[in-house]
Amino acid sequence: MSTATTYACGPLLATIDSPADLRRLSPDQLPQLCAEIRDYLIHSLSENPGHFASSMGAVELTVALHYVFNTPYDRLVWDVGHQAYGHKLLTGRREAFAGNRKLGGLSGFPNPAESEYDTFSAGHASNSISAALGMAVASQLQHDTPRRNVVAIVGDASISGGLAFEGLNNVSNTPNNLLIVLNDNDMSIDANVGALNSYLAHMTTSRLYNDLRYKAFRLLKKTGLINDSRKGALLRFNNSLKSLLTKQQNLFEGLDIRYFGPFDGHDLPTIVRVLNDIRDMDGPRILHLRTVKGKGYAPAEADPASWHAPGKFDPETGERAAAKCEPGKAPKYQDVFGDTLLELARRNPKIVGVTAAMLSGTSVATMQAAMPDRVFDVGISEGHAVTFAGGLAKDGMRPYVAIYSSFLQRAYDHIIHDVALMGLPVTFCIDRAGLVGEDGATHHGAFDMAYLRTIPGLTIASGRDGKTLRKLMYTAQDGDHGPFAIRYPRGASRQTDWRCELESMPIGKGERLTAGNDVAVLTIGPVADDAAEAVAKAREAGIDAAQYDMIFLKPLDEDLLREVAEKNCPIITVEDGVRSGGMGSAVEEWLQDNGYRRTVRRMGIPDSFVPQGTPAQLQHMCGFDSDAIFGAIKDISKL
Amino acid sequence: MSTATTYACGPLLATIDSPADLRRLSPDQLPQLCAEIRDYLIHSLSENPGHFASSMGAVELTVALHYVFNTPYDRLVWDVGHQAYGHKLLTGRREAFAGNRKLGGLSGFPNPAESEYDTFSAGHASNSISAALGMAVASQLQHDTPRRNVVAIVGDASISGGLAFEGLNNVSNTPNNLLIVLNDNDMSIDANVGALNSYLAHMTTSRLYNDLRYKAFRLLKKTGLINDSRKGALLRFNNSLKSLLTKQQNLFEGLDIRYFGPFDGHDLPTIVRVLNDIRDMDGPRILHLRTVKGKGYAPAEADPASWHAPGKFDPETGERAAAKCEPGKAPKYQDVFGDTLLELARRNPKIVGVTAAMLSGTSVATMQAAMPDRVFDVGISEGHAVTFAGGLAKDGMRPYVAIYSSFLQRAYDHIIHDVALMGLPVTFCIDRAGLVGEDGATHHGAFDMAYLRTIPGLTIASGRDGKTLRKLMYTAQDGDHGPFAIRYPRGASRQTDWRCELESMPIGKGERLTAGNDVAVLTIGPVADDAAEAVAKAREAGIDAAQYDMIFLKPLDEDLLREVAEKNCPIITVEDGVRSGGMGSAVEEWLQDNGYRRTVRRMGIPDSFVPQGTPAQLQHMCGFDSDAIFGAIKDISKL
Repeated sequence: MSTATTYACGPLLATIDSPADLRRLSPDQLPQLCAEIRDYLIHSLSENPGHFASSMGAVELTVALHYVFNTPYDRLVWDVGHQAYGHKLLTGRREAFAGNRKLGGLSGFPNPAESEYDTFSAGHASNSISAALGMAVASQLQHDTPRRNVVAIVGDASISGGLAFEGLNNVSNTPNNLLIVLNDNDMSIDANVGALNSYLAHMTTSRLYNDLRYKAFRLLKKTGLINDSRKGALLRFNNSLKSLLTKQQNLFEGLDIRYFGPFDGHDLPTIVRVLNDIRDMDGPRILHLRTVKGKGYAPAEADPASWHAPGKFDPETGERAAAKCEPGKAPKYQDVFGDTLLELARRNPKIVGVTAAMLSGTSVATMQAAMPDRVFDVGISEGHAVTFAGGLAKDGMRPYVAIYSSFLQRAYDHIIHDVALMGLPVTFCIDRAGLVGEDGATHHGAFDMAYLRTIPGLTIASGRDGKTLRKLMYTAQDGDHGPFAIRYPRGASRQTDWRCELESMPIGKGERLTAGNDVAVLTIGPVADDAAEAVAKAREAGIDAAQYDMIFLKPLDEDLLREVAEKNCPIITVEDGVRSGGMGSAVEEWLQDNGYRRTVRRMGIPDSFVPQGTPAQLQHMCGFDSDAIFGAIKDISKL
Repeated sequence: MSTATTYACGPLLATIDSPADLRRLSPDQLPQLCAEIRDYLIHSLSENPGHFASSMGAVELTVALHYVFNTPYDRLVWDVGHQAYGHKLLTGRREAFAGNRKLGGLSGFPNPAESEYDTFSAGHASNSISAALGMAVASQLQHDTPRRNVVAIVGDASISGGLAFEGLNNVSNTPNNLLIVLNDNDMSIDANVGALNSYLAHMTTSRLYNDLRYKAFRLLKKTGLINDSRKGALLRFNNSLKSLLTKQQNLFEGLDIRYFGPFDGHDLPTIVRVLNDIRDMDGPRILHLRTVKGKGYAPAEADPASWHAPGKFDPETGERAAAKCEPGKAPKYQDVFGDTLLELARRNPKIVGVTAAMLSGTSVATMQAAMPDRVFDVGISEGHAVTFAGGLAKDGMRPYVAIYSSFLQRAYDHIIHDVALMGLPVTFCIDRAGLVGEDGATHHGAFDMAYLRTIPGLTIASGRDGKTLRKLMYTAQDGDHGPFAIRYPRGASRQTDWRCELESMPIGKGERLTAGNDVAVLTIGPVADDAAEAVAKAREAGIDAAQYDMIFLKPLDEDLLREVAEKNCPIITVEDGVRSGGMGSAVEEWLQDNGYRRTVRRMGIPDSFVPQGTPAQLQHMCGFDSDAIFGAIKDISKL
C-alpha cells in the first residue's frame, strides 16, 4: 500500500545492502558514506516527512557501530527510534525507506517484526539499557560463542527517564559486557531539562582532560602495564584527580560503570578507534559521544527543535512547506489546548502547567512563553510529572498535566496511587488520544479510556470539538471533583470556530445531537463527526437514527442512557480507543446493571496492535470510519 | 469495627498527644521518649502484627523531625509507610494504634484521609521526592509565610526506584527548599541490590571526613565567613578533596543537591543539631542517616528481613507465633509458586526468575537459594524488571517475573511496549492479586485483570487452586503463545493437596464444575471456592445452578460461553478484581459480540478504593463472598 518513491543515492551507499557490505569498505571511505547517507536523508525526508534532526546527528555513530560490531549477531538496541533512520538505510531498507511511516511501509521506529537488525521496540524512551542488559545477560547464560556484544544507544534526554536509571543501577549487578553509547546532543524534542543534563553539559568542559586520560589508558594497555584490577584503581585515581581539577563528579563511575568520553560524535576515525579499543573489554562500559542534532544541514543545526519532525521542506533552501495554523483554518487540538491553558492560567493563579519533554508537542509552550515560572517541563519522566502534580495539588495548586496518551501509560500507577487515591484535583490533558497515524503502533493512544475507567473517583471526558475541549478545561479548574482527565486527538480539529466563552459544563452530562428511535449511536470525542455523517446518511435512507455525544466516559450520563435504553432500540457505540473495556463496554455494563437487555455493537480499535498509516487509513482499517458506522446502522437496524 | 486494645505506655509518651507536646520537651528528655516509643511498638506489634523493623529503625529520626520542624504546617512526606509507625504514635494516634491495619482502624501507611500529619499516600515506594517537590514548589508559588519546610524521608531501597531518580533529577530545576532525609538501613524487605546501594554503603567509610567537613561548615557559618555563593564553591572543593581521599564520587552533588552526611541516625543529639542547622538553608539538601533496621530489639537487629513484618511474637523472647507452613497444612500460594518455579527451572534451562525487591514475598527466594545465577532481584524497579525480562526473552530465555499486582501497575507501559508489542514469551506471575487484607487500599491487587485485558496478544489466566497454578506455570514455559500472565492471591490456598504432575493446560479453556440450567455462575481464580459453596446451597434450595471456572480471562473460552449462552439462563460472574472492565465485562462483551442478549450480574470489587481489614471482612464488604453469591443466585434465578 505504500507509495514508494526511491531517491537517487550516492555511489557508495548504493553498494550497501547490508552491514556486511559496509564492513568491506576501508576506513577512509566512511566519511564519504556518511555524506551520502545525510544527502539521502535530506532528500527523502523533504518529500516524505519524518523525524529528521536526530538521525542526522547520529550518522557517524551509526556507521561506526555497524562497522565495528558484527551485526546482527551483535545487538544494537536503539533508544527511541528517531535516531535510527541511518541504521535502516544500512540494513537492507534503503529502497523501502521511501515508504517510511506509510501504511504497508516501514515503521518510523526500529521494529523487530520488520528486520533482524531491529532488536527491540523503540517508540517509548529510556528502555534500551534494561532491554539490552536482558540480552547481554541472556548471552552470558547461554554461553554464546563467539562472544555476543550488546550495545544500547541512548540519548541524553532518554537517559534522564527513571527506567534508564533503573537499568543503569542494575548494570553492574550481574556479569555482562553491555556497552552503552550515550548519544548526547543536549536536546530532547525540546531543550533538555534536569540536573543530569546540566551535569552532562559540564562534562564537555573536561574534554581535554578525558582525552588525555584516554591516551594514557591506551599507552598503558599497549605496554601491558594495565590489567583488570589495576584498571579500576587507575580509573578511580583519574576520576578523583579530574574531580578536583574540573569541579565535578562522575555519576556513571559512581554506578560502577566504566566511563569513556566525551568524544566528538562526528569524528568518525576517533569513534571507530575507540569502539575497537573497548569492544572486547569485559564488564559494562559507557561511551559518551557529543553530537549535534541536525548535523550537516545548516537550517536544522540552527534550530534543531523545529527540525525534530519538520514535515515537508525544500532541501535546497530549508523552507518548510507546512506551517502554523493560518487564520480561518481549523487549529490543531494541541493549540486549542495550549491557548486555552494560558487563558485559564491568566485568570486562575492556582493553575500550573506540567509536561514531560513535550513542551512544544503539547503546546504547553504557549503558557511557558508567557509565564515561565508556572510551567514545569520535567523532562522524560511521566511518572514524576504525575506524582509531582499530586504534590502540587495536595498543597493548593491546580496542575494541568499534558502528556501524550501512549506515554501516560508509564504513569498508570502514579495516577492511581499518587493522585486518585487522595482525590487530588489534577487535570490530565491527554494529547494524541486515539489513532495517531504515521507514528504507528508504539504511539497510538489506544488504551487510555480502558485503563483509566477502572480508577475510582476519576472524571474522564472528551469533547467532540475545540469548544467542548475549552469548556472541559474550564470545568476542571475548580470545584471538588477530584482528578479530571480530558482526552483529545492528534492533529487538527474540523471546526474553524473554536473560540468561545469559557463556561462550566455539568459533570457527567452528555448531549443528544440527533433525536431518533430506530437505532441510537453513542460516541465520545471527535469521532462524533464521523458518526454524524453516518447518521445523516442513515436518516436520508429512512432510518430514524439518533445520535448522542457522551462527552463523559466517567461518570456516565445515566439520564441519557436511560433515555436511550427506554427506546428499546439497538445501540451502537463508537470510540477512538480499544473496544475491550472502553466506552462501549461501560455502556454495556450500565445497561446490565440497570436491568436493560439491549443489543449493543461496539465500534473502536480492535484487539491487535495497529501499524502506521494516515489516520483516515487506520480508522478505516479499524472499522469505525463514517462508512463503517453507516454500515453498522443499516445492519443493526434490520435486527 | 476495630477491636482496639490499648497498651500501657511510658510516662513521657503518655503526655504526647501531638507534636506540639513533643516540642515542649527538653532535648535531654528525647532519648527516654524514644525508648518508650520502641517499647510501645514492641508490645503493640507483638499482639497486633504489622511492619516492625523499619519503624524501629526510624524512631530517633521521627522524633527529631517532629521536634525540629513545625508539623503539620511543615510537611513530612514518608516514602513507604513501613517506617512511619512512630510518626503515627506522635501525632495523636497513640490510642488508635491498637487498631492498626484493622477494618475501621488506622491504615498501616500514612493516609491523608486519616490525619493532617499524613501528607501523602505512601504505599508504593519511591514517590516521596516527587510529591514533596510538588509541595515545596507549591509553597514557593503561593509565597507561604512563614516559610513552609517540606521534608521527604526516603529509604535507601526506595531511592533506587526510577521515580525517585526522576524526582532527584528535577529537584534542582526550580527554586525550592526541599530537604531529603535518606534513611539508609541498607535493606529493602530483603537485602538491597544495585550499584546505588553499594555506593551508599561505601559512603560510610568516609564518615570521619564528612564529620570534619560538617564541623568546618558550622564554624564558617558561625563566623559569617560563608554565604550562599561561597558555600557552593566550598562544597565543591570539599567534595573534590573527599573524592581524592576516599576514592569515591558524590552522586547527589552531581545532581546539584547539597549533601550532608552520613550521620548516625540513632544519635539523637546530633540529628537534632544537624536538622536545626540545615532547616532554614535555601535550596534542596539531602541528609544521609545510617540506621539499623529493627534497632533496639535484638532479634530484629539480628535478622531484619524476617522481622520486616513478623506476625505475632513474644515480646520477651522474640519467639514468633506464626511460622512456616506445617506438613499437611495448605501452603501459601506464593510457596506453591516458589516451589514450582524451582521445579520448572530444574527441567528447563531457559527459565530465569526476575523480581523487584520481593524475593521472599514472592518466594522467588526458593529458586534463588538453589540457582542464584538464574535469579535476578532488580530492587525496587518494576519497570526495569519487565523491560529487562523483555530483553532476556528476546534472546531466547523464558523469564518468570514475579511482582505483586498493585506494584505491577508501575510497569503497565513496559508490559505493552517492551513485551506484548513484540509478542515476547515473558510470564508475569502476579502475586497478591485481588483483595490483600490488612495492607489496605494501596496494596489491593484490584485492577490487574481490567488493565491487562486490553493488551493485545497477552494470555491471562488464574487458577482456582494450587494445582491449577502449577499447571498454568508449566503451560507458560514453552510454546509460541507470547506473554502469559498468571494471577494468584495473597495468603494460603485452601487445598493441602497441591502437588501434582506438571502438565500443560489447553490455553483458553475453562471448566464446567457443576452442570445446571437455572443460572450459571462464572468465576475466575480461587473465588471459585466461595462460589462453589453458594452453588451447593442453591442446589440444596432447589435451584439448578451451574458453575464454570473460566481459568482464562484471555483468550476467553468461547465454547464454554456458547454452552452457557445457549441455556438462555441468567449469568453471574464473580471475580476478585474490579467490576469495571474485568472478567464480567469481558463476558458481557462476548455475549453482545456474538448476538446473545442475556442477563448478566457482575460481582467483584466496586468502583471505590477499598480500605484495610481481613480478606474475609473485605470480601463481604465488597459483596462477593459466598453469602452474597448465594443471595445473587436466589435473586437472579427469580428473574
